[in-house]
Amino acid sequence: MLKKSSRALPLAVLMSLFATAAYAQDGDISNAEIAYAIDNTFLFICAVLVIFMQAGFAMVEAGFNSAKNTINILAKNVMDMGFGVLVFWLVGYGIMYGDAIIPGWLAFGGIGISAEPSAAGAGVLNPQVDWLFQVAFAATAATIVSGAVAGRMKFSGYIFYSILVTGIIYPISGYWKWGGGWLDQLGFYDFAGSLVVHAVGGFVGLAGAIMLGPRIGRFTSSGKNRLPPHNLSMATLGVFILWVGWYGFNPGSQLAFAGAGNTDAVMLIAANTTLAAAGGLVAAMIMAWLIVGKPDLSYALNGALAGLVGITANCDSVTNISAIVIGLVAGVLVIYGMKLLESLKIDDPVGAWPVHGLCGIWGGIATGIFGGAAGHSLVPQLIGSAAISAWAFAAGIVIFGLLKVFGLLRVSPEDEEIGLDVTEHGASAYGTSLADLAV
Amino acid sequence: MLKKSSRALPLAVLMSLFATAAYAQDGDISNAEIAYAIDNTFLFICAVLVIFMQAGFAMVEAGFNSAKNTINILAKNVMDMGFGVLVFWLVGYGIMYGDAIIPGWLAFGGIGISAEPSAAGAGVLNPQVDWLFQVAFAATAATIVSGAVAGRMKFSGYIFYSILVTGIIYPISGYWKWGGGWLDQLGFYDFAGSLVVHAVGGFVGLAGAIMLGPRIGRFTSSGKNRLPPHNLSMATLGVFILWVGWYGFNPGSQLAFAGAGNTDAVMLIAANTTLAAAGGLVAAMIMAWLIVGKPDLSYALNGALAGLVGITANCDSVTNISAIVIGLVAGVLVIYGMKLLESLKIDDPVGAWPVHGLCGIWGGIATGIFGGAAGHSLVPQLIGSAAISAWAFAAGIVIFGLLKVFGLLRVSPEDEEIGLDVTEHGASAYGTSLADLAV
Amino acid sequence: MLKKSSRALPLAVLMSLFATAAYAQDGDISNAEIAYAIDNTFLFICAVLVIFMQAGFAMVEAGFNSAKNTINILAKNVMDMGFGVLVFWLVGYGIMYGDAIIPGWLAFGGIGISAEPSAAGAGVLNPQVDWLFQVAFAATAATIVSGAVAGRMKFSGYIFYSILVTGIIYPISGYWKWGGGWLDQLGFYDFAGSLVVHAVGGFVGLAGAIMLGPRIGRFTSSGKNRLPPHNLSMATLGVFILWVGWYGFNPGSQLAFAGAGNTDAVMLIAANTTLAAAGGLVAAMIMAWLIVGKPDLSYALNGALAGLVGITANCDSVTNISAIVIGLVAGVLVIYGMKLLESLKIDDPVGAWPVHGLCGIWGGIATGIFGGAAGHSLVPQLIGSAAISAWAFAAGIVIFGLLKVFGLLRVSPEDEEIGLDVTEHGASAYGTSLADLAV
Repeated sequence: MLKKSSRALPLAVLMSLFATAAYAQDGDISNAEIAYAIDNTFLFICAVLVIFMQAGFAMVEAGFNSAKNTINILAKNVMDMGFGVLVFWLVGYGIMYGDAIIPGWLAFGGIGISAEPSAAGAGVLNPQVDWLFQVAFAATAATIVSGAVAGRMKFSGYIFYSILVTGIIYPISGYWKWGGGWLDQLGFYDFAGSLVVHAVGGFVGLAGAIMLGPRIGRFTSSGKNRLPPHNLSMATLGVFILWVGWYGFNPGSQLAFAGAGNTDAVMLIAANTTLAAAGGLVAAMIMAWLIVGKPDLSYALNGALAGLVGITANCDSVTNISAIVIGLVAGVLVIYGMKLLESLKIDDPVGAWPVHGLCGIWGGIATGIFGGAAGHSLVPQLIGSAAISAWAFAAGIVIFGLLKVFGLLRVSPEDEEIGLDVTEHGASAYGTSLADLAV
Repeated sequence: MLKKSSRALPLAVLMSLFATAAYAQDGDISNAEIAYAIDNTFLFICAVLVIFMQAGFAMVEAGFNSAKNTINILAKNVMDMGFGVLVFWLVGYGIMYGDAIIPGWLAFGGIGISAEPSAAGAGVLNPQVDWLFQVAFAATAATIVSGAVAGRMKFSGYIFYSILVTGIIYPISGYWKWGGGWLDQLGFYDFAGSLVVHAVGGFVGLAGAIMLGPRIGRFTSSGKNRLPPHNLSMATLGVFILWVGWYGFNPGSQLAFAGAGNTDAVMLIAANTTLAAAGGLVAAMIMAWLIVGKPDLSYALNGALAGLVGITANCDSVTNISAIVIGLVAGVLVIYGMKLLESLKIDDPVGAWPVHGLCGIWGGIATGIFGGAAGHSLVPQLIGSAAISAWAFAAGIVIFGLLKVFGLLRVSPEDEEIGLDVTEHGASAYGTSLADLAV
Repeated sequence: MLKKSSRALPLAVLMSLFATAAYAQDGDISNAEIAYAIDNTFLFICAVLVIFMQAGFAMVEAGFNSAKNTINILAKNVMDMGFGVLVFWLVGYGIMYGDAIIPGWLAFGGIGISAEPSAAGAGVLNPQVDWLFQVAFAATAATIVSGAVAGRMKFSGYIFYSILVTGIIYPISGYWKWGGGWLDQLGFYDFAGSLVVHAVGGFVGLAGAIMLGPRIGRFTSSGKNRLPPHNLSMATLGVFILWVGWYGFNPGSQLAFAGAGNTDAVMLIAANTTLAAAGGLVAAMIMAWLIVGKPDLSYALNGALAGLVGITANCDSVTNISAIVIGLVAGVLVIYGMKLLESLKIDDPVGAWPVHGLCGIWGGIATGIFGGAAGHSLVPQLIGSAAISAWAFAAGIVIFGLLKVFGLLRVSPEDEEIGLDVTEHGASAYGTSLADLAV
């Protein structure tokens, strides 16, 4: 950050990484370069918004769970980003956007972000920012799961899971659609990842919740006992952050922003995202009021997220009115999804599957229902939604099954009662020393 | 988010919504399209920042109040966004920016965001993003009130209020200025809404605080008892978020960003916003130190917000030095405003009126005092400030009066003592189950 | 925010502040103006992200400390921004970017942000946004210190410190490099401030920690007692906010964004920043697991920050693989830095020196080690790193020494035991009234 007169040429220019080494002189910038600047800087900003969603997930998941498991949830979310970034750089990105699954990664030219930037132009993405945007999506898929398995899973097992999901599981089904694989060729559409991202997280989470079994005390002979959230302020903040982050998630997925068609698309996407979130929020709040008898904040918050997940596949393809309807339906679905899991005695502490799994599928189907004018039809949407969900669920069963076999899945009942913060991490999130906790 | 080679044309192009269906080829983007991309994407980013302010308001208002009313405040803030988005889409936007108040909305061509985008060009806004930016402002006006009525208002009544404000009250006075109505024609100036947004929220909130009466225990025979905030960390985070969000609020209100005049204006606006916030913060901190004898954090936080509100009307029209002075004065005013309410035994738990109402008026007047070089004068500023404040206050009295008549205004004293979280929402924000609360 | 048809010319155009008063007509915008819009609006967005970091620091520092000192830490962070903005506007900016240190400020033409904007063009920055970006850096340097001196320093003394650092100390060493001073002429490189910003904060903080001495009970005859953090949810949120804010800090420091070379540089910077953060996070987590026997969240969080500090000097100058290595090393270093301070019985409650001081130096040295292809070499890096660190440490010793002489440094042991919130600020952060605290 030298003052301008003495600023050296950036390394980017000097390094052989870059094909177009021409540092434009003032007043000598072409329209192609300008469009390149707009496309790439806007995608960068969207990537930052998506990365911010990690904070939202951490706050939502920790806030909805009990205080004694807070560090554990926070640490899982943080490490999803830590390992996720390194693993997706090392292998995931290559699998997802290589030319074939195996050995697509090798064909890609090795680890990391390869390929010199192409000549600057409209719609051309610098590979570094393309990777940054993609890795934020991979980390999102991974971190959705941590809520579903909260309160009873071993941290070491979770790290294995996290690495496998961001490195292999997510990239493979991602390749099916966004890498140009069979689902893409089938005509399946998923604009920003209702299925590719959210349903993957939701169904892996469902598998985890099933394999782990419910937390102690969640389902007792006297009925179900919704273990109370320890901090709804955190959870609400988290939902607002996720809502804000979604403005990177959906609009950024347009991937090109200059050109009137692109600019207009982004603005429609942004408004639709907002309308669906509001629809989900209002529907869930009203449903909760009708069912529970009180305007329940937790349901409402999950309703907003449900609307956001539902619109993710089709935000570029539907009208404003359809977006509202998609959101409203999602807000109803998420509540029945939570009730369904309860009736099956599956313990998903934050509602990861109802929000991301069920409403992810809803997003895929809604694309077929409301996106006809954009050329989408129901059959490929049903196939794609089923295929990705089944893949994620099956992969989850295998991963969590293997962790169970190797004794890395569930903590002991004693540790669970004490809480994972103390037993797994040796600390308490809220200032009590270990001595006070009589460990 | 397909990889580029296989990306389909966005729906935006296909839908009849859009007039300019030309999807620019690489390298074939005109300057008009590029300016269009800059103007619209930057306004989108500003809209996201303003939407993020909802999180800030939620944290400030909840943090400044007691723990037993936290869910209630959070739910009100969340639903302001939920209902606000739907209602402002349905009617508010049409009222505010239609050609006449009634039947301006009908003349607008019906509900929702109408109008095809015009041909792409500098300063042309896509209607979807224009609406998004505007709805964020409407939600801001609504949510300011929730702090003023905290701790004793029925949630059902609040929902009615929220719908009326975002759907009708705010759009009507908004139309007077930003829709080109009589205040605009009079020469009244309010760049980003010291009056149009903040004073509307502040004065409706004042009406609510008066109609509700103070919380139990706030004013006793032995004097005033400032009920302690339950979480100043949350409140401080909220103020930082609001400060950051204000960089969307004020700079975004320039509405066009390409062109040297626009770009320079935005940068002046951003610096002035910062300087006024700092001025308000420092002045309030020093005042608190002098009056209370201690460097009080709550006063300082409100001082920062006061400075931000004060500069909102005139951030494009004054010099840096004037911005500092406007902030310093706001920081002093807010403290005396809080003392004034206390002396009148009006209970405004978060200082919504001193911050948004009083300093909103200050922003309007300051525009006349310091904005002479920009062509503003004092008389229209006084008229406009008085008119908007009076409108909001009167509308508030009517709304809250009607709620009172229908028994939807205030909870019972028993419920108030227990706290609205349990009695209105059936839960506790901080993890205690209902059983523990002996309900 | 008038509707477009009636929008008046912005003041920016009218005021004599601005040289280029041409308000471009629609469709009549030159490429130079467009590049100007991109460069300045993107820098503005980056400035907003850096300002958001203040919220991150507040959350990290308050969360890592005990509840009884929360208001104190929050107030220090808030006032760093309040006084910092005013003081850096008044003198700091002029010192740092004037033509000479003394009387560079006077030569600059007086207080404030002087200079009319130059003619719009690529790479030309409007002085208002240049100042905004710079002041966010100055506030960052200042606020790093508040964590190191937490829990025992007088608030009044801290205000003096804060004003001196943002007004004089930081600008002087900043001038050495970014103002074109002797370190710049020597060939020392520090792209975004591993030394200029972070090490300055870290070493002033170290001086403060030494001059203050440890908190009561931190080092006892029976060994060291790490006083427990009161809220790791807050601290984690803070780290996520800082991570997000760093995307303004590093990419924004490119200062020009249009032109393929600039655009590509920004994207490399963004990816490297991410990879180093992840590297630091993973390394610190693994190290903690090995050393402490548990996957410690606090260490991991500091590891992420360490990686971010380490990459700050060289994010534009190294490959992705080098960025990972820089992060991994930083994640190890930060843990040994914390252990080193403990062994020296220096009490730095949040690890400000290990994160910002030690890893700041690491960033400077790493630039010499990994940045050879970009033209950097080790010797100037060693000289610059040593010089800036020594300057900050010496200045810190002088400032805190003077505060000690004048009795403004440390609170009484009684006040420290009660907590600074009550004794310095007369309140409690978490809702307990003063009476309950038996003051």
